[in-house]
Amino acid sequence: MLRFFITMIILLSITEAREYLVSWNSSKSKSNIVEFVTKTTDAKGSYFIPKADRVVVFDNDGTLWSEKPMYFQLYFILDRVKKLANNHPEWKSKEPFKSVLDGNMTKVLSFGEKGLIELSSATQSGMSVPEYQEIVRKWIKEAKHPRFNRPYSELIYQPMMELITYLEANDFKVYIVSGGGIDFMRAFIPALYDIPTEQIIGSSGVIKYVDGKIIKEPKINFIDDKDTKPVAINYHIGKRPVASFGNSDGDLAMMKYSEAGRGERLQLYVHHTDKKREWSYDRDSHVGKLDKGLDYAKDKGWTIVDMQKDWRVVYPFELDKNR
Amino acid sequence: MLRFFITMIILLSITEAREYLVSWNSSKSKSNIVEFVTKTTDAKGSYFIPKADRVVVFDNDGTLWSEKPMYFQLYFILDRVKKLANNHPEWKSKEPFKSVLDGNMTKVLSFGEKGLIELSSATQSGMSVPEYQEIVRKWIKEAKHPRFNRPYSELIYQPMMELITYLEANDFKVYIVSGGGIDFMRAFIPALYDIPTEQIIGSSGVIKYVDGKIIKEPKINFIDDKDTKPVAINYHIGKRPVASFGNSDGDLAMMKYSEAGRGERLQLYVHHTDKKREWSYDRDSHVGKLDKGLDYAKDKGWTIVDMQKDWRVVYPFELDKNR
Repeated sequence: MLRFFITMIILLSITEAREYLVSWNSSKSKSNIVEFVTKTTDAKGSYFIPKADRVVVFDNDGTLWSEKPMYFQLYFILDRVKKLANNHPEWKSKEPFKSVLDGNMTKVLSFGEKGLIELSSATQSGMSVPEYQEIVRKWIKEAKHPRFNRPYSELIYQPMMELITYLEANDFKVYIVSGGGIDFMRAFIPALYDIPTEQIIGSSGVIKYVDGKIIKEPKINFIDDKDTKPVAINYHIGKRPVASFGNSDGDLAMMKYSEAGRGERLQLYVHHTDKKREWSYDRDSHVGKLDKGLDYAKDKGWTIVDMQKDWRVVYPFELDKNR
Repeated sequence: MLRFFITMIILLSITEAREYLVSWNSSKSKSNIVEFVTKTTDAKGSYFIPKADRVVVFDNDGTLWSEKPMYFQLYFILDRVKKLANNHPEWKSKEPFKSVLDGNMTKVLSFGEKGLIELSSATQSGMSVPEYQEIVRKWIKEAKHPRFNRPYSELIYQPMMELITYLEANDFKVYIVSGGGIDFMRAFIPALYDIPTEQIIGSSGVIKYVDGKIIKEPKINFIDDKDTKPVAINYHIGKRPVASFGNSDGDLAMMKYSEAGRGERLQLYVHHTDKKREWSYDRDSHVGKLDKGLDYAKDKGWTIVDMQKDWRVVYPFELDKNR
């Protein structure tokens, strides 16, 4: 009789998960997710996590939407350089702006992080945060990805959106902890993923309060990557996450931080293995490099999503075709 | 007929508010609060604020609990100096530690903010955040306020606790935005006020991620006061508050920031006018100075709580006596 009830409960929970995770093929990845949620929300089990502690963190670029051939925010920054060039005649002869205007991306990237920060600061400052976010929202509506010729907002991962819905339905509080700009992401992610601004954490510029407004200054405040992801989590949330989702070595510290807590944990890497529908890359990629993290994850038995095998669709627009 | 319904609705809402704000005497302060909540939660009225935007911010010291004769966290820091003195023989001859050990508070304070930061950093670092918070929780249980001979946690304002409950019952999301230490407050405020760590914002030290742990470094990261309160609100929340509650000039920028938004707003100052039950101070006080803010609030018609007249009780323990 006990076995009957246990079977029924497992069946019920699997059925429920299926309703959410419709774009996931049956796989170890999917069953690991369902097992984690089922175990930690069972108030009578020994793995139960109270609602207040159900904090989960997701990287964004490469984990919730694509990041190839380069971070989408970088496209925004490059478009801004071109748009603002008329007001900055000096950019024609000043690097890295010159190379952006010449369309020489190889040279732009040769200036490294310093060059990117310079571009980022110059194009995303001198206005209030709401003014900046209006510009971002206009861009995300109009700009198109070079490979797919679709708005960047359509290149989000359908299975991961379902995962977020599934977790929220089970009272997990979902945070984004990304290297992307905090004001940039907050401009459109609330409407796109249905996650409120206060649950979106990212890199930030210096901001200043002036006469009732928050003004963006051309200076970096915080880079949210690697070892600073757990730091940002402590400042913003003040709790250790019980599950973490990433796709690169930049997420490893955050994932180790969630792993190091007591009790049941889930660490999941999205492994980009799908050249046809998305991209295939890991150890040698300049964007979203997954090397040490892959070894560590394999060693520790973390969940590694094989995008090609585990996902029935990658992007939401594929759902229309599949019908 | 319409008038009848309107009267009924107002009566109903007042009755409901009475249930929450039981320690508030009938006053302009109380009716301002009730009017704000009633107007902004009426989905059919023109002042309606959607739930996602119902963000409200409270200062802590002097707004939700007492701050006299000095900030309670400073008592904690002084107790820590005495406790750690054995491991630091050099403190016997090194200021400002020497004066703390000599019990010469006038001299301690003469070293100004720099001295306080030195004491603060030296006594609240070198351990993980959870380890630090265990120490804080132990202290808050054992230490007693010099005037009242009661734990500091008993010196919270009963009417303000009711106000928080009333706002939360109306789907406002309550944040604390305080000059107090973020890790310090998060150690006990969740249990004391029933506000989760992620809604507690404050000053912070530098923290570092090391091997699965967040370690507190002896260095200041962010002081959450005056013009940096709106800055912290943008980083942590990313929305402009619709109501703000403070008691000093240090809260003025935050309150102006909420005032500057469109739509119905509430800015409320707690004015310390009650020498007998609490303290009476404003323009000349070193702690919680309220000078420019008082003029501005009067000029703009903000709500100014007269603690002596508007509050039936100040502290929860008075409720027992009043029965």
